[in-house]
Amino acid sequence: MIIADRCRDAADASTAELSALAPCGRARRGDFDLTLPLTHGGTATVRLRYEIVGPENAPVLLAAGGISAGRHVIASSGFPEAGWWQSQAGSFRLPDFRLLSIDWIGADGLVDRPIDPADQAEAIARLLDYRGIDSIAGFIGASYGAMVGMHFAARYPERCCALLAISAAASAHPFASACRALQRQALTLGEAHGDPKSGVALARALAILTYRTRQEFAERFAEAPSVQGDRLRVPAEDYLDFQGARHCERMCAVAYRRLSESIDLHRIDPAGIGVPLTLVAVDQDGLVPGEDIRSLADQVAGSSFHLIHSRYGHDAFLKEDAEVGAIIATFLNSLELSK
Amino acid sequence: MIIADRCRDAADASTAELSALAPCGRARRGDFDLTLPLTHGGTATVRLRYEIVGPENAPVLLAAGGISAGRHVIASSGFPEAGWWQSQAGSFRLPDFRLLSIDWIGADGLVDRPIDPADQAEAIARLLDYRGIDSIAGFIGASYGAMVGMHFAARYPERCCALLAISAAASAHPFASACRALQRQALTLGEAHGDPKSGVALARALAILTYRTRQEFAERFAEAPSVQGDRLRVPAEDYLDFQGARHCERMCAVAYRRLSESIDLHRIDPAGIGVPLTLVAVDQDGLVPGEDIRSLADQVAGSSFHLIHSRYGHDAFLKEDAEVGAIIATFLNSLELSK
Repeated sequence: MIIADRCRDAADASTAELSALAPCGRARRGDFDLTLPLTHGGTATVRLRYEIVGPENAPVLLAAGGISAGRHVIASSGFPEAGWWQSQAGSFRLPDFRLLSIDWIGADGLVDRPIDPADQAEAIARLLDYRGIDSIAGFIGASYGAMVGMHFAARYPERCCALLAISAAASAHPFASACRALQRQALTLGEAHGDPKSGVALARALAILTYRTRQEFAERFAEAPSVQGDRLRVPAEDYLDFQGARHCERMCAVAYRRLSESIDLHRIDPAGIGVPLTLVAVDQDGLVPGEDIRSLADQVAGSSFHLIHSRYGHDAFLKEDAEVGAIIATFLNSLELSK
Repeated sequence: MIIADRCRDAADASTAELSALAPCGRARRGDFDLTLPLTHGGTATVRLRYEIVGPENAPVLLAAGGISAGRHVIASSGFPEAGWWQSQAGSFRLPDFRLLSIDWIGADGLVDRPIDPADQAEAIARLLDYRGIDSIAGFIGASYGAMVGMHFAARYPERCCALLAISAAASAHPFASACRALQRQALTLGEAHGDPKSGVALARALAILTYRTRQEFAERFAEAPSVQGDRLRVPAEDYLDFQGARHCERMCAVAYRRLSESIDLHRIDPAGIGVPLTLVAVDQDGLVPGEDIRSLADQVAGSSFHLIHSRYGHDAFLKEDAEVGAIIATFLNSLELSK
């Protein structure tokens, strides 16, 4: 389902280089600087990095994932490495749509201030201005991306035809906020001793526990712990250490703290979401309880609500390919019906 | 329900001093050194600290709690500070029974080696020898104490008339083990940088999240997070920080690691539990799933199984006073019936 690019845009090519290749490119990256007023005070000058894939002039879908997801959603001939939502590459109907995404403001570690999800929504609006896109056909967000989508739909309803929001509620759950606060304390402990990477690795491993389920761990890591040297090592530890180490290479402690905080800053007035809303909850999600998403659905007239079941909990949007793909397909069909 | 002591034993009096006060004391502390063969290799010379409350010659109940619980279970006139199971002080029927408990082997940080719950059971047997107690009327254990109780009942069935085991299964759940492994990584991060107390505080705060429930946090910490200085602070953070700081004063990093590991080393053959067994599970316990305890009950002929409901999850044994007290009462009645 991935369309062929006739021109190959180099990864991380500058905006100028990309402009030189345009308009033949169907997958392109760009970046530009903008000054944003921040919800929690002051302004920040940030570099906004985006990627867009698909035919010129096709309606735009904006895709946004978790705090560790970036602008590279799916592979293309120009950027052939797998994207964070590669498993849904076939769902976005690229011949009919273009897929736009960003690296989150703050993901580069250069905004060491509280970042509200509304600030990300504002950045996306600036990107649409920059690219000359009046409105997007649909915003497909999961986890943090769904929170940002709600803010975008509340702030710019005229620029967004519909929102599909997966695994996010009107605000963070207090227990999930507590979990993230301790992840941030792990970041702080590492930083305090000049070892921020160890803090990032531990924080990420802790986060993984909240993304997945007890059931999955019981199935994957059933062996007995073993004494290695004179320390105990449990079966899940290799996996968690791997995830932690990999995250260190992607995200610095400052970026991780600010994006983690941003989830906890999320708070939306359901009445303010001014576009057709599709909500998806995962029954086993320990981070965003299904009842919180159902409650949001109950407060938004005309919204639709899907409850799916998954041993992957909060990560279901990355793992339950068929079920999530079917929901995206229904969402895209609804966009056409509303045309 | 707390009996009056006619002689006041000083807290932390030496064994010699306590002996001088005996036999009038109804609450006394003692300690002695013993050499234990460890399940996972080698031997350890440890100081075993115990407390016993109640009339001389009354049948003995052994009470054992979580890894942070020690020998001081309930207040007495000699040791008037509240004990860790003070809320159940009225349940142990001290006129009819004596209550015996220990500080866990390793809690003093002097055993920096893997400690199996079976090693604790062995230490308890040595304590009975030391005190001239042939057998105990009942072993009442909760959490780690229940695991130790299973090992004691498996190793010394002739020395234990019955076991009441609250919130423990035949082995640790892989997800709970993963949570504890990351708590131990927090300990290691602190130690690696010469700041073990910060590691202990973070590890304890992380553990608290596993002891309690999402529901309780939703009820207690519903306010929005706030930006303080330029960092976000969530409502639960004061509580978690307090718990972490308090734990630093009680337990060093070495002790915490070894007792935490010990939970993950727990693995019992249900067929080996050679005494009447009462099991208690908490439906909302995220650390020890109720189904795991029910499964253990299914494998032990003649065992009885109680499922209670509590917003306090794994900590229910410390919070659901009436329900837990009723179960203890039933258990004590069963001891009398079996006489």
